[in-house]
Amino acid sequence: GMNPDLASERQTASFSVEKLTARLDGGAEHTRIRRAVVEAIECDPVFSRENQYFQSQNERYEAAVRKAVHLQKKMHEMGWTEDGPEFKYIYRALSGDIAFLLHRIFMRSISMLGSDKQIAKWIPLATQYQLIGSYAQTELGHGTYLQGLETTAVFDITTQEFILNTPKISAMKWWPGDMGRSATHTVVFAQLYVQGKCYGVHPFIVQIRSLQDHSLCPGITAGDIGPKMNFEHVDNGYLMLQNVRVPRENMLNKFCEVQPDGTYARWGSQKINYFTMTTVRISLISDEVIIPLMKACTIAIRYSVVRRQSKLKPGEQEAKILDYQTQQEKLLPQLAAAYAFHFINNYLQELFDKVYREIQRKKFDTLPELHAFSSGFKAMVTQYCTSAVAICLQACGGHGYSLLSGLPSLYTKIVASCIYEGENTILLLQTARFLIKCFMAAGAGQPVPPSVTYLAAVKPGKCPAKNKLDFLSPDVYTEAYQHMAARLISSTAAKLQDLIQSGVKKTDAWNQCTVQLVQAAKAHCHYITVKNFAETVEKLETKAGIQKIMKHLCDLFALHGIFSNGGVFLHDGYVSGAQMDMVTASYLDLLAIIRKDAVPLVDAFDFTDKSLNSALGSYDGQVYQRLYEWAQKSPTNKQISPAYERYLKPLLHNTLSKL
Amino acid sequence: GMNPDLASERQTASFSVEKLTARLDGGAEHTRIRRAVVEAIECDPVFSRENQYFQSQNERYEAAVRKAVHLQKKMHEMGWTEDGPEFKYIYRALSGDIAFLLHRIFMRSISMLGSDKQIAKWIPLATQYQLIGSYAQTELGHGTYLQGLETTAVFDITTQEFILNTPKISAMKWWPGDMGRSATHTVVFAQLYVQGKCYGVHPFIVQIRSLQDHSLCPGITAGDIGPKMNFEHVDNGYLMLQNVRVPRENMLNKFCEVQPDGTYARWGSQKINYFTMTTVRISLISDEVIIPLMKACTIAIRYSVVRRQSKLKPGEQEAKILDYQTQQEKLLPQLAAAYAFHFINNYLQELFDKVYREIQRKKFDTLPELHAFSSGFKAMVTQYCTSAVAICLQACGGHGYSLLSGLPSLYTKIVASCIYEGENTILLLQTARFLIKCFMAAGAGQPVPPSVTYLAAVKPGKCPAKNKLDFLSPDVYTEAYQHMAARLISSTAAKLQDLIQSGVKKTDAWNQCTVQLVQAAKAHCHYITVKNFAETVEKLETKAGIQKIMKHLCDLFALHGIFSNGGVFLHDGYVSGAQMDMVTASYLDLLAIIRKDAVPLVDAFDFTDKSLNSALGSYDGQVYQRLYEWAQKSPTNKQISPAYERYLKPLLHNTLSKL
Repeated sequence: GMNPDLASERQTASFSVEKLTARLDGGAEHTRIRRAVVEAIECDPVFSRENQYFQSQNERYEAAVRKAVHLQKKMHEMGWTEDGPEFKYIYRALSGDIAFLLHRIFMRSISMLGSDKQIAKWIPLATQYQLIGSYAQTELGHGTYLQGLETTAVFDITTQEFILNTPKISAMKWWPGDMGRSATHTVVFAQLYVQGKCYGVHPFIVQIRSLQDHSLCPGITAGDIGPKMNFEHVDNGYLMLQNVRVPRENMLNKFCEVQPDGTYARWGSQKINYFTMTTVRISLISDEVIIPLMKACTIAIRYSVVRRQSKLKPGEQEAKILDYQTQQEKLLPQLAAAYAFHFINNYLQELFDKVYREIQRKKFDTLPELHAFSSGFKAMVTQYCTSAVAICLQACGGHGYSLLSGLPSLYTKIVASCIYEGENTILLLQTARFLIKCFMAAGAGQPVPPSVTYLAAVKPGKCPAKNKLDFLSPDVYTEAYQHMAARLISSTAAKLQDLIQSGVKKTDAWNQCTVQLVQAAKAHCHYITVKNFAETVEKLETKAGIQKIMKHLCDLFALHGIFSNGGVFLHDGYVSGAQMDMVTASYLDLLAIIRKDAVPLVDAFDFTDKSLNSALGSYDGQVYQRLYEWAQKSPTNKQISPAYERYLKPLLHNTLSKL
Repeated sequence: GMNPDLASERQTASFSVEKLTARLDGGAEHTRIRRAVVEAIECDPVFSRENQYFQSQNERYEAAVRKAVHLQKKMHEMGWTEDGPEFKYIYRALSGDIAFLLHRIFMRSISMLGSDKQIAKWIPLATQYQLIGSYAQTELGHGTYLQGLETTAVFDITTQEFILNTPKISAMKWWPGDMGRSATHTVVFAQLYVQGKCYGVHPFIVQIRSLQDHSLCPGITAGDIGPKMNFEHVDNGYLMLQNVRVPRENMLNKFCEVQPDGTYARWGSQKINYFTMTTVRISLISDEVIIPLMKACTIAIRYSVVRRQSKLKPGEQEAKILDYQTQQEKLLPQLAAAYAFHFINNYLQELFDKVYREIQRKKFDTLPELHAFSSGFKAMVTQYCTSAVAICLQACGGHGYSLLSGLPSLYTKIVASCIYEGENTILLLQTARFLIKCFMAAGAGQPVPPSVTYLAAVKPGKCPAKNKLDFLSPDVYTEAYQHMAARLISSTAAKLQDLIQSGVKKTDAWNQCTVQLVQAAKAHCHYITVKNFAETVEKLETKAGIQKIMKHLCDLFALHGIFSNGGVFLHDGYVSGAQMDMVTASYLDLLAIIRKDAVPLVDAFDFTDKSLNSALGSYDGQVYQRLYEWAQKSPTNKQISPAYERYLKPLLHNTLSKL
């Protein structure tokens, strides 16, 4: 049966949950397809995550490989294809708990960087999993700065081979997934040397394990880099190369080639490479960041209406913890953020599709904008969602700290998204560089992309709000965000100019502004997120109560941002102290309003119990029963502890006579 | 050998590291004793944490029990006693990785709540570990709100026994350490019923496991609650009681008793119970929170001078990442906070000692102040340090995410401190309640404790700073903090009054102010921390450069707080926008100054490599070598994966013919 405290929350929804779900999916037909995929995956015991929280790193790895191999059969059986409408839901349904994701990057890099001949040779084998690929770029001592990679590939003209080496320990490849234990092949990025001259970093296909018995190939040292904060299912690996020879044909040569006589030839545009990174960044925002936040909100909010603690009023029953203002203030802004980021992800997808169409027409003009914004949004969204998941975890008290709640693994996984595919600070500085450039261009009357035209018109001003209701006007708060972002960008640009004019070298001046540049880039992304949320709400259907509740969430997201970052709005007096009190009042009012729909708002995310894998977050709210059932399954309850025989018995066995 | 990039950092220290270490320890003699304890513990292989990151929950538990038992021998052998000067360093030297901490709480509760007769019976047995105790208060459905506990103890006058029961699943005891697998006895908190009347929650000693064979006693269901985010070494447990009978003498009866005829008698003051909670909260601040932050800073800062990435200037070597302003801005405020909190902990210890002396003279007047501030500082310091450790982890990029860095386990452990021994929001609201009360009293001209007299004189005003150097004056920034805290407390008090006067019920009005009350309580604690840091610096010896560098850190801590929470300082115009720019300028200047001493400042914490247990943080800075050596020890590198035979071989073994 359903916990009555949870059931009662669902009876008073102000909107149609099913309609909102369809809106989030992009239409009811998508919802239908997604549910069919989830159903097919979840009813298959091979894909079960039931015992995940009790498994060792080794068991998780084994299961992930089993699932990856099984998935091929499943796809065939179900008639799912990589370009079919089901495909994007498969990874979500598996919660990413599957091996061979780097194998896919291996394939993608060959498709992007390899010649037709190379593609014809390798892709069919990889598609059939007749080899397992990995992608070895990052080194023990080198990540972000690709030019600093130390692995070498020297062309030997006599044998027509490249000789690959790890010249020192910091040059060891480190982190590549699927490489520690599974991969037979990998794409190795190495400094290319021909006749003593270095031509920079290039990709080489290298076999690392035997196809017959999986033993390491001659000259190869490889293994697992050991335990991480999460990703137990992935065999992130290390790789050392000692005089490993590969044929000349193994350098991926769509854009450049070493010819038999040692001539180095280069052709075509490599701009498309940026596009690959951009693709990865945009796709991870949804799967690895927004969905985990939606799960965390679902778990924490359902738990918060089931958990009762202390009394709000003497003589009454203990109150649901979600009825405390402080609990609302922890969770509801995170819920609003989940919606805000879902919509900004749609915005990025549209921008991406537009750029993609232009690139197909060989137009690359919009690539820098896409690159800058996908970087900034990747950084902003991952950082925000990581903090948000941490808040959800702590808001569930002790039970949130149990792995069985599902929240610790959501946190330990999402935090990695701040680091991989571009460390966030570095990404924000790339966004900032673009914004400063646009600001200068706009100031000089040159054309800039539409999303940054607001930089052309930075001017002092005052927020026109006269009472707390005025702050529920999207125009009012969107203007405030715009003003704030423009001010931070322009004042940082001014500081940069001042430093350079006072004789500080450009590179030093840039470094001295980076704290503020990061702040400015975040402010821009925050502004665009608010603006996009408000515009999305305006376009929503007014039926079924959806626009109304989304408007509340948009207001909450915007006002929470002003409330929490008051300094940047008050700084130049655009918002006054009295107005900040209005913001606070409206913000706190909204908490009480949205609280009423909190459970329907997380129900709309439409997670199954299996996908949440949480003793706190299930649809029926039977929290205590489930915690107890799950705890009993812990292997620590099945193993007879040798600690008693060894350590305790000698101490305890004389006690009886003394009691 | 030492990594030259790390060695060079040590050659330019502006102060004596050894003198600062002695200052932190409270004198050179303490340093000597601490080092002797650390040396004795670390050279003993039983206490080794070498393989910790590779161990299962079960292995961690076994090791913790082994260590706890061994520690008794060790203490005897070394001549260490519980009231000797070495004792406080033992737990630190073990990094808390030991069993039977709840056994100590079991003993403490008997000592505090038991009669002399009960103490005489149980304490000697417990001291000798002839029984293993636990402390069963928290239930599956009940934590903070003690009155809500559901376990019952019904007095049976015919047999002179209490009958203990778990009436429903939410009443199950849940979380007690040492209870899941080890304990033979526990103190159970239950609602006492005598002749149908409930007398509220009382403590009972209950045996749960046989002393002969460790099997569960009749009527007892108990086990391990399963995996948590950390604390793998602790067997947190569950406990159900079905008609479990204990003799009348097992109710701890220092303050109250059920007499043979069923008469309930109560005597003495229970105020002292608050004092116990306070003791625990203050002691955890140092061991569980500040020391872990100091470790995280040590690891992240040493790594940041060894790791080089990208170029600050073209043509130069790649730069140490600590030379980037953004990296300084991540780490150095956390370092300053570690010092700030070390000093506020000293302040709390002094307040504690003073109150303790008064209590011994039966004076309880200062207990509410100590209770309010220990609550607020526990909450503020745990929250701040948890965020700080997360920042340190993310600042180390991918390597910080490896368990081998030591940072993930520091994070996953410290985050629990925000929840246990009083959930932080609830604690801050207790502080807020005290502050509001003091504010009202001060306004009415009544006397208030010295630390809150500033509330008597809340007045508008302006910060007098005229240039960025003025913000390096402790008077200027301390005043700003004081003003800000007083304003938040007074404005929240005003809102509360307004609501009540407008007819809102007191309890509802309180709930509607809690977000702001929490903010006000934090602001007070932040103010006192800054003030105490500034006062401590003033009293430091001026020799050996210590006062100078501590002054810089104090300035940094204070200005970082203003920079990061600009809104509350700008709100009423006390600090202007132009002054906020001065704060920012001074703050950024300080980063560059303190960066020069960053490594000596973490060296002064004097952690051994074994206590850091980090491949990134060792004293010699041989980061890459150590990561590689440690990774090779991972069991995933020793196990032959069945995944190859089972899943991969069938796919791969036909590939050769196609290549």
